Amino acid sequence: MSQPTHDVIAIGNAIVDVMAPSSDEQIEALGMTRGGMMLIDADQARDLYAAMGPGREVSGGSAANTLAGLAALGAKCSFIGQVANDQLGEVFAHDIRAGGIAFTTPALAGTEPTARCLIFVSPDGQRTMNTFLGASQFLPASALDETAIADAAILYLEGYLWDPEEPRAAMRKAIAASRNAGRKVAFTLSDAFVIDRHGDDFRKLIDAGDIDILFANENELAALTGENDFEAGLTALAPKVPVLVVTRSEKGAVAMAGGERAAVPAEPVEQVIDTTGAGDLFAAGFLFGHVRGKSLEASLKLGAVCAAEIISHYGARPEADLKELVAGVLA
Amino acid sequence: MSQPTHDVIAIGNAIVDVMAPSSDEQIEALGMTRGGMMLIDADQARDLYAAMGPGREVSGGSAANTLAGLAALGAKCSFIGQVANDQLGEVFAHDIRAGGIAFTTPALAGTEPTARCLIFVSPDGQRTMNTFLGASQFLPASALDETAIADAAILYLEGYLWDPEEPRAAMRKAIAASRNAGRKVAFTLSDAFVIDRHGDDFRKLIDAGDIDILFANENELAALTGENDFEAGLTALAPKVPVLVVTRSEKGAVAMAGGERAAVPAEPVEQVIDTTGAGDLFAAGFLFGHVRGKSLEASLKLGAVCAAEIISHYGARPEADLKELVAGVLA
Repeated sequence: MSQPTHDVIAIGNAIVDVMAPSSDEQIEALGMTRGGMMLIDADQARDLYAAMGPGREVSGGSAANTLAGLAALGAKCSFIGQVANDQLGEVFAHDIRAGGIAFTTPALAGTEPTARCLIFVSPDGQRTMNTFLGASQFLPASALDETAIADAAILYLEGYLWDPEEPRAAMRKAIAASRNAGRKVAFTLSDAFVIDRHGDDFRKLIDAGDIDILFANENELAALTGENDFEAGLTALAPKVPVLVVTRSEKGAVAMAGGERAAVPAEPVEQVIDTTGAGDLFAAGFLFGHVRGKSLEASLKLGAVCAAEIISHYGARPEADLKELVAGVLA
Repeated sequence: MSQPTHDVIAIGNAIVDVMAPSSDEQIEALGMTRGGMMLIDADQARDLYAAMGPGREVSGGSAANTLAGLAALGAKCSFIGQVANDQLGEVFAHDIRAGGIAFTTPALAGTEPTARCLIFVSPDGQRTMNTFLGASQFLPASALDETAIADAAILYLEGYLWDPEEPRAAMRKAIAASRNAGRKVAFTLSDAFVIDRHGDDFRKLIDAGDIDILFANENELAALTGENDFEAGLTALAPKVPVLVVTRSEKGAVAMAGGERAAVPAEPVEQVIDTTGAGDLFAAGFLFGHVRGKSLEASLKLGAVCAAEIISHYGARPEADLKELVAGVLA
């Protein structure tokens, strides 16, 4: 088995985020679940956009955000995801490539536009997401570059992309390609509602030993294990995956690997502006530590520092110099 | 003459800004003039975009930014500008309408895309702009709603839009409509290079008494008057316009009206992040004070407060609650 030339290759939704400040009253009046992610169709997207305040656009997508963080930290990364041949697709492709990430998936022909996520940001920074998947849900298995997958130490997958059929098939194929090459598969559960829809699939993947590193938050841990008690959930899940990372918002994060357990508090943040991407950037920091052979605790700390950066401004792509921010942890 | 139903109607470029952090070295290497605005074609836009780092998109356009500020302060506004029928056009139209501004100019049919401005932001917050005008340069005089112009206390025009032929003709027609209705015309000189190209036109408008309120910065004052000495420039220009407002960056601003002179220092800013829109938001604050009958000094102070808000974050559209920020000045 040859050494991988890349650190992480990810498959994820190729989304541009559209963010605007909102109020919890507006979020409730529009029938959204505060803090959740809802899939919407083109008509809903039009109506919800009309209800939003003046916005700003920043590239997003869960796994793509994680790669942006990893690349900013110095990791060598590739992205696989489906944009359309339109202006938002150009924005997404530009931003990911400008971050130094290889991205060669051809734009989708036809009329499906590039995915966008309408994000209502509450005064306390909580984000409520409404995703119109558009082209992103049509990522075909044929778009996979299996050589590139075999060439990356870690294949990283987002649970959000398990909803649409074609990307789900593509991710199954990618898992096989990664494992055949002797690489690791990392998976983020993304959202408790995604687990409601696809928990059986996820549990099967885990039981089959196809997931080496699993990321979850507290709600997702409960949804996957059926255990409402945090410790009970950890105890149930940890033996089934080589590395389990559970983020707990302001309570920090816990990781378990081969019987070892580590925990870190959340990094202090002057003001939480927008929590979009907190989990994505936590995963970036943790994975960077993992591929660089850092301890479980140091990897968690890297995750916490990156998450703190992302929630201190609008948008889920890093703005500050992450290398500088984590220098103390890596020293 | 009936009372106007609107405070300000503006004609300006309909632009989405694409911003990324940069370095002065990169700005020089790409042949740009730090702090300037350069018009670029589609090929240059493609090449420059490829050279930019990961970006973020926020609606822009000088006069449109000013209206966003005015509307946020509570003024009733309308905008006239040309977008295309594309995603960036939707973004621009959404943002201006979501700000409470009337915008009914039909999107341009055809292949010209919505205008974008590629903005390289230096570490000290200076912005260097590269504008691809696209659809914006084809605003036809037929798009003017002369009833709406007659119904606004102030017609506000941006010098940037004097470059392309069709909008220039539209603005001349708008000036006539506004003056025939007994309203005031406000004009911002926008950029010293614009004055190099169109100074004769601007001086003729001023000499004809067609400009009631003129906005300039120090460089533009010098370019228009040919006086490199600030006081000499003021002395030359002030008698020719009922209200002259000159912004001086960190030195504050000066206004002269009917022999009266007022000045304010710049408002303190914790950290200058991005100076894009500083002049636009200064104009917003000043015009708000003017239409509300405030003193010259109070109007300048309103301008300074709004400018300070805009340079403390990325993007030229206000993020903080401007009404709250200016409450002390209006009390």
